[in-house]
Amino acid sequence: MIDTNKLGRIINKMQENGLSQIIVTHPTPIRYLTGLRLWPGERMLALLIRADGNHRFFINRMSQQEDQGIPITYYDDTEDPVALLAACLEGNTDATGSGVATAGVVGTSDAAGNVVGIDKDWQAKFLLRLMELRPDLKYVNSSAIIDRVRQIKDAHEQELMIRSSQLNDEVMADIMAIANQRFSEKELNAKILDLYKAHGVDRISFMPMSAYGRGAADPHHDSTEDRGRRGDCALFDVGGEYEGYCSDMTRTFFLGEVSDRHRLIYETVLGANLAGIAAAKPGNKMSDVDKAARDYITERGFGEYFTHRTGHSIGIEDHEPGDVSLANDAPIEPGMCFSVEPGIYIPEENIGVRIEDLVLITEDGCRVLNEFPKELTILPFPEE
Amino acid sequence: MIDTNKLGRIINKMQENGLSQIIVTHPTPIRYLTGLRLWPGERMLALLIRADGNHRFFINRMSQQEDQGIPITYYDDTEDPVALLAACLEGNTDATGSGVATAGVVGTSDAAGNVVGIDKDWQAKFLLRLMELRPDLKYVNSSAIIDRVRQIKDAHEQELMIRSSQLNDEVMADIMAIANQRFSEKELNAKILDLYKAHGVDRISFMPMSAYGRGAADPHHDSTEDRGRRGDCALFDVGGEYEGYCSDMTRTFFLGEVSDRHRLIYETVLGANLAGIAAAKPGNKMSDVDKAARDYITERGFGEYFTHRTGHSIGIEDHEPGDVSLANDAPIEPGMCFSVEPGIYIPEENIGVRIEDLVLITEDGCRVLNEFPKELTILPFPEE
Repeated sequence: MIDTNKLGRIINKMQENGLSQIIVTHPTPIRYLTGLRLWPGERMLALLIRADGNHRFFINRMSQQEDQGIPITYYDDTEDPVALLAACLEGNTDATGSGVATAGVVGTSDAAGNVVGIDKDWQAKFLLRLMELRPDLKYVNSSAIIDRVRQIKDAHEQELMIRSSQLNDEVMADIMAIANQRFSEKELNAKILDLYKAHGVDRISFMPMSAYGRGAADPHHDSTEDRGRRGDCALFDVGGEYEGYCSDMTRTFFLGEVSDRHRLIYETVLGANLAGIAAAKPGNKMSDVDKAARDYITERGFGEYFTHRTGHSIGIEDHEPGDVSLANDAPIEPGMCFSVEPGIYIPEENIGVRIEDLVLITEDGCRVLNEFPKELTILPFPEE
Repeated sequence: MIDTNKLGRIINKMQENGLSQIIVTHPTPIRYLTGLRLWPGERMLALLIRADGNHRFFINRMSQQEDQGIPITYYDDTEDPVALLAACLEGNTDATGSGVATAGVVGTSDAAGNVVGIDKDWQAKFLLRLMELRPDLKYVNSSAIIDRVRQIKDAHEQELMIRSSQLNDEVMADIMAIANQRFSEKELNAKILDLYKAHGVDRISFMPMSAYGRGAADPHHDSTEDRGRRGDCALFDVGGEYEGYCSDMTRTFFLGEVSDRHRLIYETVLGANLAGIAAAKPGNKMSDVDKAARDYITERGFGEYFTHRTGHSIGIEDHEPGDVSLANDAPIEPGMCFSVEPGIYIPEENIGVRIEDLVLITEDGCRVLNEFPKELTILPFPEE
């Protein structure tokens, strides 16, 4: 069933951008708006949103749906679904001269009804066909409208994000309990999947990453048969879904002992994590969070080893539009949810540390969704 | 490394269609042409093919490649990759009035250089940006050009298709040996994955389907915990990859005994399989294969229970463009490879039978790539 609250916020944002009609086609924004998980493959799936309320769904007849609160046009494989969609668009079908408006900006010389917003991921075969059928319209990429609305979680979404991270905290406690049992990285990944199931989490946000020592020094490490050695770090980057909303957390433990150098690295990452979280508040920009974490690490001489952005937005996808990076000067607003995950990676010293929490922006700061402890933890480890 | 033979055939087909430049972006046709498995995600990946030989690859700097035999333009995340691509297209940048040519047909009033062929799956965000940068060009969906070339396997591809199906025959023999061991459908699926690995096949073409009795009566059955009963059919639809080329075969066995009615159904499907194969030859149309198989089943009174097309083309993907259906009147040509897989599905009689072979079209007929026997087979099954 279409969420009328989200729909209303999207229509407001459309009107701010001078758009009276947009076509949403990617399964993820459609899931955001309806809760439906549809995978159309090569077939057309489209949700037409019109500011005048004449919304309509276009779905292949093989995927019959319950009532969604708006009209549904079903088509079969002998029909041209783009023609059915084209007939439902506003505009002056007598006009000539189609074209592409300047990206994201609708010129004042175009009546709003002569423009249609297009999903950034729509396949060219459909877009070219629509342009052929409706040469009177101008076409713009309108995905930023939905992306911006998705960034602000409503009250129900906030509850789900909170609960999702609570479950992730519970799973991390179980992971810590087996992190020193000499399982291989691959075995740990398999056990983590079982742990999510044991906590009632049927879907994961992404494949878990378990890494010891040098493996942890690669932020994109593929887990191996390595079983860890005394003095190694053990890094776990994991997340599950709760009612469609994602969690994502990283913790790094030590096995048996920790060198002074490794302790310094850990404390530096922890300080950067806390500095980033302190900057995560309305009035700041997304880039301020990255800068706070990055400066903390750079000032302590490890800047070259922090090789990725500080975080990413999260919600129904693990990575959603809205980077926590120096390139994103968008303002931080209440309801946003993103990760703060600085790290230091030094392969030649067999260490990688990352500490990642999710934060939910409030009116005057943020709520940290992960309550799992992050002080340096040394797990008992047998002598070899 | 780009395959110059395939590239030459594509350029010939471009010229037949009045196109001097096309943009290939989907990972599958790029793998077809280069052997590379690239997964660009949200980033742009594009291979520009120009009839004048000025080909060029556009790849994100994070995915550095070996020499591919054509120039590569690397871009980083601070650059506009579409602008780099736009600058390499032929055309008259002084001209005005962009537009969309009639799908698949380039009007004679447009000089070939003013048209660019677009991959059917290219994301709208890139296509709209290109149209903005190059309003002098007309844009057409050109994927059919590569799809038609892909349908005709060259000598090397034919060898790989043959070997891939030989391995599938070997795996099917191992499957038959465990089909009567009272494993659940899900357990069988897991064991089949292991069998492929044991035969050196690391990638499967699609998830295996194991189904007993009533489950087999649903062509899209999700395997369950069912362990089969005496008198059930046991259907296996499986395929693996050999050096990137796919196999795909279905066999249906019986457990312990077979009723006269089930035997009639089996023999009808087998006759349809043979009739379809007999029609798979140059001079016929793809639809003739479907008609031959369908008529055989319909004449014996089971037409309403054969609920899908007779087959699909296959190569580097399990399902490639080129249906074996009544809707496809394209001529059959030497080098084509497709499945012939009629079936009869009757849930209320707890039976589904499908017999699927791959055929490779020769100068005067076809070679059946699956040599695994298909006469009716009753496996020993314990009394319950």
